[in-house]
Amino acid sequence: MRIGVMAPARGLDPARAAEVEAFVALTFPDVELVVHRQCFLSDGHFAGPDAARAAAFLDLANDPAIDAIWFARGGYGSNRILSRVMPELGPAARDKAYCGYSDTGFLLGALYARGVGRPVHGPMPIDLGRAGGDVTVTRSLAWLTRGARAGLEPSLGGRPAAAFNLAILAGMIGTPWLPDLADHVLMIEEVSEPLYRIDRMLFQMAHATQLKGLAGVRLGAVRDVQANDPPWGETLESMMARWCGEMGVPYLGRAEIGHDADNRVVPFGLA
Amino acid sequence: MRIGVMAPARGLDPARAAEVEAFVALTFPDVELVVHRQCFLSDGHFAGPDAARAAAFLDLANDPAIDAIWFARGGYGSNRILSRVMPELGPAARDKAYCGYSDTGFLLGALYARGVGRPVHGPMPIDLGRAGGDVTVTRSLAWLTRGARAGLEPSLGGRPAAAFNLAILAGMIGTPWLPDLADHVLMIEEVSEPLYRIDRMLFQMAHATQLKGLAGVRLGAVRDVQANDPPWGETLESMMARWCGEMGVPYLGRAEIGHDADNRVVPFGLA
Repeated sequence: MRIGVMAPARGLDPARAAEVEAFVALTFPDVELVVHRQCFLSDGHFAGPDAARAAAFLDLANDPAIDAIWFARGGYGSNRILSRVMPELGPAARDKAYCGYSDTGFLLGALYARGVGRPVHGPMPIDLGRAGGDVTVTRSLAWLTRGARAGLEPSLGGRPAAAFNLAILAGMIGTPWLPDLADHVLMIEEVSEPLYRIDRMLFQMAHATQLKGLAGVRLGAVRDVQANDPPWGETLESMMARWCGEMGVPYLGRAEIGHDADNRVVPFGLA
Repeated sequence: MRIGVMAPARGLDPARAAEVEAFVALTFPDVELVVHRQCFLSDGHFAGPDAARAAAFLDLANDPAIDAIWFARGGYGSNRILSRVMPELGPAARDKAYCGYSDTGFLLGALYARGVGRPVHGPMPIDLGRAGGDVTVTRSLAWLTRGARAGLEPSLGGRPAAAFNLAILAGMIGTPWLPDLADHVLMIEEVSEPLYRIDRMLFQMAHATQLKGLAGVRLGAVRDVQANDPPWGETLESMMARWCGEMGVPYLGRAEIGHDADNRVVPFGLA
């Protein structure tokens, strides 16, 4: 099995890439990891210019010899290649999985909106650097290689699901890149935001015309919450209940996704 | 002429309110400023609970003896009263102007979307505290009281327009609160954001299905830009040209709006 790695947003440190290659060689000996050299480009904020990131994605997506694309890491920038890559996807792109989270949710969402391949929210190569990161990245690798269910988000089953970073979800609302999530359980997680911004994004989610008909919403980890001035004075649970109430959709409780080592795998659709 | 003041987001300091009342008494003696006591409530982040802010807005909007509502200040929270207030607006609400900017753009946009009254982007009472703030707030007062054009954004004329803080505009995209801006010149401004976030919001604007058919986009002041890690390396002019190009809408250059003393008046629609 051949898994291609490219970086649609920020780049991957070559040393980290070497660690990931060594880890995969040891733990998944039947996997050939194809790390696209684009991962190591640098252009300001990004792993190379938009054109280079788009070309690398298409190299791997349209290659019938690649079984899955594992996004190297997030950051910011996946949205900037959507217009370039989505119209250029050929038949080989439909027959593979795409795994990542955070900023790469722009690509997962756009692929799911068009029914291309099997988008999967899951840990990325960069996560090997976390404490316990070997367990973390194994969840994605085990799902991609043998459909192992041990790393799946525990509430999954029975209903289709999708998982997004809240800021990325909010940034897709009102655009054609947001998939139809009717009857899906939507899982959201967040990192490095103050609570007033989280509240504003939940407002947008709750009022989004495109998100009518969700089966329910679950909240993943909310990490590194930034200071709110003045103090916010409301719990995340209360915020979720309030906005889901305004949305007319059940708040189903917590989900084990997030920007941390506990991040689990959420295949888009039925798992 | 009676101008009502209420605070849909954060509260107004009583001392500032007294200054504004004194200023208006001196410079616009024919204006009776009706400062709703809700302005001085405090509930965590907000000028009172959602219910109190909504009730104050409706008190003034539905009062036939009030000719205009001048929002006291922004902050965060105007979005949280939309569902409560918009269905409750009566005939008197249609016959008045509503003036503010920043977070209060949620209300201006929702009112414009439903054709209620005359929403106006313009300086607010809080702006009297800026250096040169007397000139700043006079622009709004002179427009509201006698339709004075001296304080209008200088590029206005001929085509309908609307002005928003970019984060507020982005937060309305995909919801029923965003007005139809076909054939409008859209002016945007921003404050306290890093450039990668501005880029992400411009992406959403450029790809928003609801914003197809704009006559053009103008960029106002972008203040207090937060550090970007790594450095962004692209000018705002280049970003505007790039995203307007992807949107298929002309970038028309700068506009004199923003979170500063130079902020001008932009009546929604034809001025």
